[in-house]
Amino acid sequence: MTVDASRRDLLIAAATLTTLSLSGEAAAQVSIQPPVAPSGPKKKLGMLLFDGFELLDVFGPLEMFGMLKDRVEILMIADKAGPVKSGAGPQAVADYGFADAPKLDIVMIPGGIGTRREVNNPAFMESVKAIAQATPQVATICTGSGLLAKTGLIDGVKATSNKMAWKWATAQGAKVAWVPHARWVEDGKYISSSGISAGTDMALGLIAKLYGKDMAHWVAHRAEYRWNEDATDDPFATMNGLGG
Amino acid sequence: MTVDASRRDLLIAAATLTTLSLSGEAAAQVSIQPPVAPSGPKKKLGMLLFDGFELLDVFGPLEMFGMLKDRVEILMIADKAGPVKSGAGPQAVADYGFADAPKLDIVMIPGGIGTRREVNNPAFMESVKAIAQATPQVATICTGSGLLAKTGLIDGVKATSNKMAWKWATAQGAKVAWVPHARWVEDGKYISSSGISAGTDMALGLIAKLYGKDMAHWVAHRAEYRWNEDATDDPFATMNGLGG
Repeated sequence: MTVDASRRDLLIAAATLTTLSLSGEAAAQVSIQPPVAPSGPKKKLGMLLFDGFELLDVFGPLEMFGMLKDRVEILMIADKAGPVKSGAGPQAVADYGFADAPKLDIVMIPGGIGTRREVNNPAFMESVKAIAQATPQVATICTGSGLLAKTGLIDGVKATSNKMAWKWATAQGAKVAWVPHARWVEDGKYISSSGISAGTDMALGLIAKLYGKDMAHWVAHRAEYRWNEDATDDPFATMNGLGG
Repeated sequence: MTVDASRRDLLIAAATLTTLSLSGEAAAQVSIQPPVAPSGPKKKLGMLLFDGFELLDVFGPLEMFGMLKDRVEILMIADKAGPVKSGAGPQAVADYGFADAPKLDIVMIPGGIGTRREVNNPAFMESVKAIAQATPQVATICTGSGLLAKTGLIDGVKATSNKMAWKWATAQGAKVAWVPHARWVEDGKYISSSGISAGTDMALGLIAKLYGKDMAHWVAHRAEYRWNEDATDDPFATMNGLGG
């Protein structure tokens, strides 16, 4: 590291400390400074939205990455910019349509009942394929892996999905190396989680991969979240007859 | 129960089964039918939004209540209808302004960095007070209890809050019976959770109160969520020096 780079890191760390003091849910008892100082430009994390997305598939992972505002920018992306209705009713706002979304560092594909319609929507599926091909880190939550499987991009790749929608999800890609017993699975540039809540655990796993395990624990603590950090610990597979 | 009421319940249960088959993340291995049949009109659950709300404070509880679409309608409420930006960046949409929101059965007040501004916004605080007074079940998540404390409505009432923002939250209401060591606390019509992720556990506690514990377990299973169901189990209090 050059002296200039080192000095820049110190300045960024100091700025981070100030920002967190002003903007975080900070207090005396927990370190308000992340254990790793930011360096380089912010990563662009794009979350895909579609009518009938599952709320926690989207906002569990974004809560965790949202703790890293000093190094991650979150962008919401759908077929076009504007409100998008979740399966439960509440609407989120897409900042970009696929056509005008910037180049991403990470893309996340959630699940939800809308996946059942979108796998049969060629324009949407082409957009998902293009953005997954163009992005160096691709994450799926829940039945989002069904969407990705349908593109063919994860043929031969290990992946998992929702344990209560296993039959539907795995039918979208017969050549995917489906892993039934897993909270989440990583294989190359792809990382996929089991159902709904598992996306939050996977997100912390991805934070650990990108920034180290201390950072993942720091984020989990700030969110008062008990991270299920063993990716192979999946009681829901067993509960749904998918092997122990 | 009259014969008519009993027949109505059966019809509703049958309709629920059909709806869940079509719309849920359902599969062969888990019961797609909730353990308790719906009866009576849907409950209206209002979630308050304000600039700088915390994502998971809002969408953790709504994921769990969103599993009960046959008996709960979710409404998003802010000072006015339209997009509202979270602390992490992504925007949700308020369906109603305070002035035109319908009468609610349950109101939820989230936390987030925006609470620091809103406690000093008399118009917002009057709206929070009015909606909490008019609603038979009031829930707060994270620093949302600071907002409610500031209204004076929970003077003498047991409540908890975020363990990393404890000093700020408790300073909003010196007469509140603050409980430092709790995942969530119930006292009369008020229920309050600890920080961020704790709101999801509290929501399942509220579902257990309203519909029975079997229903809470059914919802948690469908969300592949490991419910921290002991309201007194709070490692984050200890980790933040708030007593064991």
